[in-house]
Amino acid sequence: MKSALSLASPKNLNRILRPTFISHRTHFVLAIRGIYPTSLVFGSNIAGHRYVRLRVMASSFKPEEARVPPAVPLPTPPVTKFKIALCQLSVTPDKERNIAHARKAIEEAVEKGAQLVLLPEIWNSPYSNDSFPVYAEEIDAGGDASPSTAMLSEISGRLKITIVGGSIPERSGDKLYNTCCVFGSDGKLKAKHRKIHLFDIDIPGKITFMESKTLTAGESPTVVDTDVGRIGIGICYDIRFQELAMIYAARGAHLLCYPGAFNMTTGPLHWELLQRARATDNQLYVATCSPARAAGASYVAWGHSTLVGPFGEVLATTEHNEDIIIAEVDYSVLEQRRASLPLTKQRRGDLYQLVDIQRFNSQ
Amino acid sequence: MKSALSLASPKNLNRILRPTFISHRTHFVLAIRGIYPTSLVFGSNIAGHRYVRLRVMASSFKPEEARVPPAVPLPTPPVTKFKIALCQLSVTPDKERNIAHARKAIEEAVEKGAQLVLLPEIWNSPYSNDSFPVYAEEIDAGGDASPSTAMLSEISGRLKITIVGGSIPERSGDKLYNTCCVFGSDGKLKAKHRKIHLFDIDIPGKITFMESKTLTAGESPTVVDTDVGRIGIGICYDIRFQELAMIYAARGAHLLCYPGAFNMTTGPLHWELLQRARATDNQLYVATCSPARAAGASYVAWGHSTLVGPFGEVLATTEHNEDIIIAEVDYSVLEQRRASLPLTKQRRGDLYQLVDIQRFNSQ
Repeated sequence: MKSALSLASPKNLNRILRPTFISHRTHFVLAIRGIYPTSLVFGSNIAGHRYVRLRVMASSFKPEEARVPPAVPLPTPPVTKFKIALCQLSVTPDKERNIAHARKAIEEAVEKGAQLVLLPEIWNSPYSNDSFPVYAEEIDAGGDASPSTAMLSEISGRLKITIVGGSIPERSGDKLYNTCCVFGSDGKLKAKHRKIHLFDIDIPGKITFMESKTLTAGESPTVVDTDVGRIGIGICYDIRFQELAMIYAARGAHLLCYPGAFNMTTGPLHWELLQRARATDNQLYVATCSPARAAGASYVAWGHSTLVGPFGEVLATTEHNEDIIIAEVDYSVLEQRRASLPLTKQRRGDLYQLVDIQRFNSQ
Repeated sequence: MKSALSLASPKNLNRILRPTFISHRTHFVLAIRGIYPTSLVFGSNIAGHRYVRLRVMASSFKPEEARVPPAVPLPTPPVTKFKIALCQLSVTPDKERNIAHARKAIEEAVEKGAQLVLLPEIWNSPYSNDSFPVYAEEIDAGGDASPSTAMLSEISGRLKITIVGGSIPERSGDKLYNTCCVFGSDGKLKAKHRKIHLFDIDIPGKITFMESKTLTAGESPTVVDTDVGRIGIGICYDIRFQELAMIYAARGAHLLCYPGAFNMTTGPLHWELLQRARATDNQLYVATCSPARAAGASYVAWGHSTLVGPFGEVLATTEHNEDIIIAEVDYSVLEQRRASLPLTKQRRGDLYQLVDIQRFNSQ
């Protein structure tokens, strides 16, 4: 496993990132952090000539191969600190009211300083297979064919903010999707994420739901560069699939946004757990946004919209009532956490590899 | 995405696992669960001939390709219910005492009905880079060269139980490892797991430790078939790497055992979170075992040994003092949970694939 190389080339020196310990004895070890666990061994031989050796302990571990293609370095975000708003909206059967209500919440969030606003899953319609076809909008057609996204476009451009627009039922040809639209501060649609993993579960006596009765699953992971960093998008059940978050981290995401409507069974069991796990394992921010709980609805949402930091720490959260959470995201923490726990350099690409199929095929 | 196949071959019928809904109208849909989201369409044509079609909605999602090689089906465990003991032992600088103390704890656990006993990480030695070389044993030589494992072998055979023997420093040639030995109820060494991911972290002002100063990392994941099911082994920092747990689940593990000594910083932050995440994401049992906290030690362990069920539920845990936790494992719950949340059938092998390199190479 260990091999001793004589130190010579700049290539080897490039592996040296930061000295953490220097002893001033004739023979000493400079413990360093690098691509691999490595140490420099300084000394002098019997004839008094000084030498230095680079001990590479783990080159065969191939941490960079644990992601295929290799993970991109974390990009420098366009902003280090900013305020995010999680709008835990009440949702009714009245679509016009839902749109006006969301608009008002976004305006309130921006008044409080938010540069990024996250909305809940299915915020313009009741969450049910009966409602999806009725409330669905033709997002690509825009305008009157999609009043919900028209509002998001107008307000994001007018207030010069980024909106991760929760999700709405989308109609495209003869298919329906559960779709999240991301609008930039110029009011333009920057990305459209169609829920990849449909919510088909059956916990007898507790909760049974089959989205696949009406919806079609999306075809692509979605990462989008915005004014507030690189954001990976998932919708609700997508959060259960750790591979998606791993792919997003490898694509350089700073933040994952999951609009989601967990329920009264899976909510208390898993909602916070999954957010904290995705944040901790991938060392990035995770934000979630649920509808407020409506006790009379056929599907009762858990609520508890939350912002989680890269150590899995809950930075801001709420209960089940309607609420607008304003919290600060500080991307400088990402590098600190990754320096403290250098997981990406410690992975064992010699033992496991996660392949991002679409990124692999596009290269 | 959707394609309609005329139902003919038994091969297609094999996809049908359980009908959930039948309507008695002339035309009806039998919603079923199968390898893919699928529905049977029964009807009669204009001439009165009845027909049945199988609608396959998601064959292009390739859930079975999300693991490479494909995940093995969950094997039928040799026992459905059994008692596990997590022995949260106090550890001192006196190795003989540590061995005698562990033996006594195991005997007590077995008196209380345990068929599987899990010990802590580094239970025969203080946890420090200074101690590892001093306390290391030549496990492969056995006998006097490894009094710690000799005790485990003797007692597992005598009491006819399975022991996941925490870990001890192992010497092999000029290398040292952090090694977990698994003994079967015949007293024989069934598996030896050398910690794959060495604990090299630096949280300034909180905790800095570099196992790689003295230890060499192991070369292989370890899954072992025992009298109490198929067990995947990780040691402490191994739990941070979700890929290892994913590999174990794909190899058919019922239970993951992580001897581990998290500390006063990462313990409260992540110890329970990681266990619950690995259990929930992979839908299996997770058991952890820490040394008891010794406030005067150079490395202060968090304690909190825990058993977690496949929904991420904490089934049994403790604080930081010495304790023997006895809890029941019920493998019948695994299939229930997997039927409720059929994650393995919902993964998107068309979008991501986790490759188990050694299993792939061995096929």
